Amino acid sequence: MKSKAAVAFEAGKPLEIVEIDVEDPKATEVMVKILYTSVCHTDAFTLSGDDPEGVFPAVLGHEGAGVVVKVGSDVTSVAVGDHVIPLYTAECGKCKFCLSGKTNLCSAVRETQGKGLMPDGTTRFSYQGKPIYHYMGTSTFSEYTVVNEINLVKIDESAPLDKVALFGCGVTTGLGAVKNTANVEAGSTNAVFGLGAIGLAVIQGLKKAGASRIIAVDTNPDKWPLAQKMGATAFVNPKDHDQPIQEVLVEMTDGGVDYSFECIGNVDVMRAALEACHKGWGESIIIGVAGAGKEIATRPFQLVTGRVWKGSAFGGVKGRSQLPGMVQDYMAGEIDLDSFITHHLDFEDINTSFDLLHAGESIRTILTYGGDNA
Amino acid sequence: MKSKAAVAFEAGKPLEIVEIDVEDPKATEVMVKILYTSVCHTDAFTLSGDDPEGVFPAVLGHEGAGVVVKVGSDVTSVAVGDHVIPLYTAECGKCKFCLSGKTNLCSAVRETQGKGLMPDGTTRFSYQGKPIYHYMGTSTFSEYTVVNEINLVKIDESAPLDKVALFGCGVTTGLGAVKNTANVEAGSTNAVFGLGAIGLAVIQGLKKAGASRIIAVDTNPDKWPLAQKMGATAFVNPKDHDQPIQEVLVEMTDGGVDYSFECIGNVDVMRAALEACHKGWGESIIIGVAGAGKEIATRPFQLVTGRVWKGSAFGGVKGRSQLPGMVQDYMAGEIDLDSFITHHLDFEDINTSFDLLHAGESIRTILTYGGDNA
Repeated sequence: MKSKAAVAFEAGKPLEIVEIDVEDPKATEVMVKILYTSVCHTDAFTLSGDDPEGVFPAVLGHEGAGVVVKVGSDVTSVAVGDHVIPLYTAECGKCKFCLSGKTNLCSAVRETQGKGLMPDGTTRFSYQGKPIYHYMGTSTFSEYTVVNEINLVKIDESAPLDKVALFGCGVTTGLGAVKNTANVEAGSTNAVFGLGAIGLAVIQGLKKAGASRIIAVDTNPDKWPLAQKMGATAFVNPKDHDQPIQEVLVEMTDGGVDYSFECIGNVDVMRAALEACHKGWGESIIIGVAGAGKEIATRPFQLVTGRVWKGSAFGGVKGRSQLPGMVQDYMAGEIDLDSFITHHLDFEDINTSFDLLHAGESIRTILTYGGDNA
Repeated sequence: MKSKAAVAFEAGKPLEIVEIDVEDPKATEVMVKILYTSVCHTDAFTLSGDDPEGVFPAVLGHEGAGVVVKVGSDVTSVAVGDHVIPLYTAECGKCKFCLSGKTNLCSAVRETQGKGLMPDGTTRFSYQGKPIYHYMGTSTFSEYTVVNEINLVKIDESAPLDKVALFGCGVTTGLGAVKNTANVEAGSTNAVFGLGAIGLAVIQGLKKAGASRIIAVDTNPDKWPLAQKMGATAFVNPKDHDQPIQEVLVEMTDGGVDYSFECIGNVDVMRAALEACHKGWGESIIIGVAGAGKEIATRPFQLVTGRVWKGSAFGGVKGRSQLPGMVQDYMAGEIDLDSFITHHLDFEDINTSFDLLHAGESIRTILTYGGDNA
């Protein structure tokens, strides 16, 4: 099968739109025709070369939605024609992790997925006869992609794929971190560091949880109106203060916040987010992905006096079990996805989408395969 | 009132047994005749000069038990003759912290207590007319001490004071960290770093919680028999391994422990304890007190993939509400205090008690005021 794809041939270079070859799915695999995809900072991070697990050439992309076009012989949970969202966090339902009831980090395909390979150790993508690596088990930057059955969730056919594609990463991560990882209670005081898609989704989740105070922290004041629309109650720009931002927040909140969320990937901000928490009970959730070799640090006294340091991956959401319900919540008007979509472009303009993200001008750009958004 | 006391006149020097003057308690204060006290590593830490909050000259000591001899005019919860345990973690029942239901870190007298003063900003101790500082709100190294009513808990008169004195710090801290901070479940796998009184109490708490595996980690194999008696199921000496200890534990436990406890105060061990935790759910509890300026560090990936970093002070125990119940548990045979007591000495030999602790020869030495243990 020939497929249009945006290939990352080399770290630090723009993607190249080429026609690649996509092999049929093996027994437990599924071929999906991606209709819509978007670019997340993690794609940009890997493309930059800073991701120690990054391998090239690769088909990146992990936020998307599409339709099943072929299924392997052992596939039972999806059929041709089903509307689906690829999941970079698989859910096998059988491994130690899935059975623990404590985490969404399925281990079934983790090892090969991290190396850009399918579970048999090979790839389904090639270009001019040479293999191209997969990415995060999803590779949504190819019109036709092959994923494991356990990396795929079937959703309601009536859901608009050009919107629910966003459930593939950032929005789900932010909403889930509030609900599953922090389990925020009504009336709480919160700080959210970084107003990209994840930070905005955290704010939306906090509003849904009934938080009293939602303090949005970002160095770019242009992000404030959308944060406010999502539910933020105050905006703090660290550049406006000489004091460390944690001190500013502790003063603002009479002792610190109940919950803080780091949605950037900066280890210094992670420290500030922890230290902005209230003594005795404040919890800080790391969501952002830091660069290779970077470390977080603080005085242990911060923890001994009752602060808790946690992290969240895909918001603790089990994709196959829980995404269908989130799609229903969106359709019932309980989750706002539309506000995250600031731009629409044709898939061929994907590098512009990266530029918009880097410039802080977009939250999410929906890229349409074969569409006409010009 | 004249009182025998072991005074820390200077950092790094042995204590000196002298006769000091002790003023009467003010309105909300209580004078206690201490009958038994013991030395904890925190006393040694402050005496060493490494404690940034350490002030001299001071009457140290925070594990003890005694009898009320005078009460201030506003004191209502204890009376002359009551058997009591001084509490370095006060419980006022009225502050934001006490009312939160989330922490035992009462703030009522925190500020002056940290400076070695009573709430009115003065001290009740003096020597040759010069003031001597209090310590941790308790100062059990004086036969007569003055503490705030909220730093004192009345206990059952039939409880042996030479045993339950240990509830003043280490044993309560270890048992509480398991129950209140980690909330360990039956069947869990655990690692305990450091086999002093706190580590041993953690092990005892884990056994009570029904833990399946309790791995005791220490560089001193002489600690193993007592750890085993408390309930440890395996002993690991980091010196026996070339690999980092976290890797050894991850291999031993097929992925890591469910809970780990750092009971030493070494920031490198704190990191190892976190990284020995199982991906997806492992929680590490810092109990040890690190030196001034020391910082913990790890890759944020450790938290993003589901590990949780916490700390515990006095085991999360609210002393006035909960210690009487723990005393009853001891008397009912449900808590073993006796095994912690490895030595008995007269109070005058307190410097020997510090030496035994430093040499790793003692767990706890019970010091008797006016006794004859020679």
